[in-house]
Amino acid sequence: MIERVTIIGTGLMGASIGLALKQAGFGGQIVGWDKANEEAQTACDRGALTDVTDDPETVACESDVIVLATPVMGILDWMERLAPYIAVDQLITDVGSTKREIAQAAIRLYPDRGAESVYKNARVLPGHPMAGKESGGAALADAELFRNATWLFTPIYESSHPLEDEWREWVARFGAHVLDLDAARHDEVCAWVSHLPQMLSTALAALLEETFGSDEAGRAEIAAIGGRALRETTRLGASPYSMWRDVAMTNTDPIAATLHALEQRLAHVRENLRTPELKEEFRLANEFRARR
Amino acid sequence: MIERVTIIGTGLMGASIGLALKQAGFGGQIVGWDKANEEAQTACDRGALTDVTDDPETVACESDVIVLATPVMGILDWMERLAPYIAVDQLITDVGSTKREIAQAAIRLYPDRGAESVYKNARVLPGHPMAGKESGGAALADAELFRNATWLFTPIYESSHPLEDEWREWVARFGAHVLDLDAARHDEVCAWVSHLPQMLSTALAALLEETFGSDEAGRAEIAAIGGRALRETTRLGASPYSMWRDVAMTNTDPIAATLHALEQRLAHVRENLRTPELKEEFRLANEFRARR
Repeated sequence: MIERVTIIGTGLMGASIGLALKQAGFGGQIVGWDKANEEAQTACDRGALTDVTDDPETVACESDVIVLATPVMGILDWMERLAPYIAVDQLITDVGSTKREIAQAAIRLYPDRGAESVYKNARVLPGHPMAGKESGGAALADAELFRNATWLFTPIYESSHPLEDEWREWVARFGAHVLDLDAARHDEVCAWVSHLPQMLSTALAALLEETFGSDEAGRAEIAAIGGRALRETTRLGASPYSMWRDVAMTNTDPIAATLHALEQRLAHVRENLRTPELKEEFRLANEFRARR
Repeated sequence: MIERVTIIGTGLMGASIGLALKQAGFGGQIVGWDKANEEAQTACDRGALTDVTDDPETVACESDVIVLATPVMGILDWMERLAPYIAVDQLITDVGSTKREIAQAAIRLYPDRGAESVYKNARVLPGHPMAGKESGGAALADAELFRNATWLFTPIYESSHPLEDEWREWVARFGAHVLDLDAARHDEVCAWVSHLPQMLSTALAALLEETFGSDEAGRAEIAAIGGRALRETTRLGASPYSMWRDVAMTNTDPIAATLHALEQRLAHVRENLRTPELKEEFRLANEFRARR
């Protein structure tokens, strides 16, 4: 039975998990730590935490569940850092945007030694809620952030564990739809539906900034003429490098493959602007959208 | 004084202009024609037209303003077709998405012969309201479609004309912001802010359809995992080829140039997923978005 949760990283995701836990009726302790102490304080002031700690290792030792809610490289660091401290009947879960490297680290650091072994570890259940906001930070945390969102898990052990089952139940009480996926498949699909849209939106916004940024008349024309099409295709350009650096570092090959495929596809469109091939391209795109 | 308007092409744009005219207090006749007669009938039933005609040439001869509201190739055709019929003190305007070829055709077919000449022509004021909906058709026409939208004009004559001035006043009464632009500049800026986002969205949706379309499990994963990022970057994939073919045909070089620039930019991102260059790309994109 989960009675104490530690949240490492109390930005938008971490603090929203704290709020969602409380709203769903969790009556235990929720201790938070953030490398920016004021973020943890904001999360606490907003009611996402019962306590703020400046000694996360010790608090983690005494928790049933440790939620790692930092960018991916931070999650990998914390998995290393906590490994010597935490023990059997504790669960580490996370909200990282990529899962293959996290799953690999989990298998290495927290292996399932089997029922017979005298050496036992804490368990890891890698997770990824498909939810967010345009801006981050504890101040924007929201108990409803996960309602109707998909919450992916990429389980690494053969068998389940009561702590994992209970955590899944809490996630379901947040209003999220739980879906299990293989970690490598997770990263491949997310490269297509999330990382590629991000990189293309960043590239388009950066290209427009370089083309028109220093040209005042051009900037005014773009502001006057650009409508919803421009707004939507460049919106993700506002995303922070700090988070996406870690995604790019831990999912490089799948992202590169999708970018390369899109480059070729754009060249194909460019070479066929005046041929019937363009009709086929619109037909395929129409079909994709008709399924949404 | 404008007393009779003919609208050629009574889909979403044409019928919305009829509704906007009436809402703005236009008390004259609004005659409509569409190659799909039921579209003209729908526009009339919805109150966008006072009359439907099956003889647009004759009606156009007797109108003060002729609004060409078909895709661009249709507009070019109608400019040719009407040239022998219409005369001085008539105004042709349009809502086509590209303007350079339309402006060129206007100069050729309806030249400004100067005050001294005994040969005089109807006037052309090429226009482009930056408004639309995800789906077309007279059934979705809306008197409020142009409110707060930019309505571009690419004037072709040295001097203005009372009919042009009056038409601009009606457009302002629709709630639109009028902006004048050189036709070639219009096409170049629209390539960046409208045509490139469209082609990119079509290419991405077509690529996803080809990658996952026949894979039922993949389709289900995409549906479960894809969120707002995917929805927004592929939304324009639903756009109809029929309209965009004409844009691609009449703005080929500017669109090809923007596509090529984006291909190179995506390659640059791909080659720098693990280098500090990615940070610079996010910085530029952040700056672009901070201006929105």
